[in-house]
Amino acid sequence: MKVSELGEFGLIELLAEIATKSRPKPLLVDIGDDAAAWSSEAGVQLATSDALIQDVHFTLSTTTWRELGWKALAVNLSDIAAMGGVPQYALISLGLPGDIDVEHMAQLYQGMAELARRFDVAIAGGDVVAAPSVVLSLAVIGSAQGNILTRAAASPGDQIAVTGYLGASGGGMAMLTRELQFDEETTTYLRQAHLKPYPRVVEGQLLARHGVRAAIDVSDGLASDLAKLCKASKVGARLFLDQIPIHPSVRNSFKEDYLKLALAGGEDYELLFTGSPEVVDRLRGSLPCPTSVIGEIVSDEPGKIMLLDEHGEEIKLEKEGWDHFGPRDKSEASQSG
Amino acid sequence: MKVSELGEFGLIELLAEIATKSRPKPLLVDIGDDAAAWSSEAGVQLATSDALIQDVHFTLSTTTWRELGWKALAVNLSDIAAMGGVPQYALISLGLPGDIDVEHMAQLYQGMAELARRFDVAIAGGDVVAAPSVVLSLAVIGSAQGNILTRAAASPGDQIAVTGYLGASGGGMAMLTRELQFDEETTTYLRQAHLKPYPRVVEGQLLARHGVRAAIDVSDGLASDLAKLCKASKVGARLFLDQIPIHPSVRNSFKEDYLKLALAGGEDYELLFTGSPEVVDRLRGSLPCPTSVIGEIVSDEPGKIMLLDEHGEEIKLEKEGWDHFGPRDKSEASQSG
Repeated sequence: MKVSELGEFGLIELLAEIATKSRPKPLLVDIGDDAAAWSSEAGVQLATSDALIQDVHFTLSTTTWRELGWKALAVNLSDIAAMGGVPQYALISLGLPGDIDVEHMAQLYQGMAELARRFDVAIAGGDVVAAPSVVLSLAVIGSAQGNILTRAAASPGDQIAVTGYLGASGGGMAMLTRELQFDEETTTYLRQAHLKPYPRVVEGQLLARHGVRAAIDVSDGLASDLAKLCKASKVGARLFLDQIPIHPSVRNSFKEDYLKLALAGGEDYELLFTGSPEVVDRLRGSLPCPTSVIGEIVSDEPGKIMLLDEHGEEIKLEKEGWDHFGPRDKSEASQSG
Repeated sequence: MKVSELGEFGLIELLAEIATKSRPKPLLVDIGDDAAAWSSEAGVQLATSDALIQDVHFTLSTTTWRELGWKALAVNLSDIAAMGGVPQYALISLGLPGDIDVEHMAQLYQGMAELARRFDVAIAGGDVVAAPSVVLSLAVIGSAQGNILTRAAASPGDQIAVTGYLGASGGGMAMLTRELQFDEETTTYLRQAHLKPYPRVVEGQLLARHGVRAAIDVSDGLASDLAKLCKASKVGARLFLDQIPIHPSVRNSFKEDYLKLALAGGEDYELLFTGSPEVVDRLRGSLPCPTSVIGEIVSDEPGKIMLLDEHGEEIKLEKEGWDHFGPRDKSEASQSG
């Protein structure tokens, strides 16, 4: 069987099984969550790694090197945020063709350094190797104080909530790859959403502190990521489509597609979390960003998501999100796992 | 300027400077050593990352997937070994074309898991993404008790010593890529040396415990790695060519080239270290592998290596080692940074 037939998530399950069988000591959180977690004398340690590959996750025709550096670190910080953790150290592995400009590499690093500074993250080391196209592989190490957020902790009766807005990154990708023209404000907003996502590091720590237990970051798309959270928690979900927070710039610019962008565009790097109505209610006053309740966790087939329109009628979705090796309905090159 | 003009090591210096300037807290060991090190409540933490790129570091025509998995982890464990540390957790980022066999990916992971078990390392997480060719990017996190080994701690008067034998990995690469025929024992030895290096994790910890302060692993080649150690320590070195440990299989199979293989073949993953004559002498009885004294540290221009033959005459070397972006005098695809 080919990797493309099994799909990204099937492959990860298979590889995780091999890794788990050979493991000398148990982890707090196993492969398949946003980050790995284990106990140490210094408390809970977190680690995650995520790679961006040229012409798969980004194309140099639509991003600057500085933005690319920022984003490569942002997607990793977002994984730590989704655990409620504090990112501390980053390792940067670069694969590069020899004909790349040194100045561009400096800009790439400046973009990473700019974001690292915001969260007191130290770029601690890495590796530079020759490669036929650009590969950015980062690992981020962090810690958590007490409670961590996992995908496996959602319970029936929990509300499902999300930070910020969804669909803007997918809209930004569509704008850049299809060369769509919008007004300046919209263009800036969409570009920023796609190329310079701001990881919800502060928000993730607040979630953990206020009693939330279950979270995931929205990288593959709301529908896909909610399904993963539900599968890990062995629960189902009801998603209220009319409650999904979609920015007016996205609604107005993609009148046909905004809901699809919000459900399956991916790369929003917002935090999707669940908690009792009391916990979520308390949180909405504490988070420094808009927070929307968009559904509820129910006892159902693990991972089953029921989409409901504003009248409570069920709606079927064709495509649930992003699978790196699955069949694609679009050819744009920009998505992150 | 292009990356190929500046070279791998110039680029790393430039990027390290950007990373250092933006760093919120100092590290114990900065970018440029085998691994990053910092102090935590649980002691000294170590982290390293190293990527293997298809047709740059390996070619699927000469390695099995299982060997490739082993080697990808081995090169990272070797970096922790060169700090005298204990490797604990590994993160695996895989970039893969969709038409790869799932069974091959399982073999790759089994190779990693096999080596991980030997050193109680937990494969804790990772990432799988689509890529035009195979990319294996690993990060390993570890710890150190007390003293760590760095490149910057060599002093004039130190002896220079190395574990095991040098040149066998380069010999193995030459055998595999040039399809050279040797007897079965030699073939097995050379293949193993190149494709399944055994990282000197136990030896690294013994070095640290017995008072060694300066070490580096031999990945780019003895001459290049010794020059890096000397540059970091602001010292020079005298290297006694006739004392370099070269296995009879390499001497007999590469009668013209064995010294060049030992000096610049690279990927030996042995530990090159320095210490006072007393420390080195004590160690030679304690290490579970052959250990050879091959030179001495002297006050000289930082990084200057003088090569001496058996009569004490100086010899000039054309090529000092491996630069990922520098000019190459051979086209074989297999080297690791």
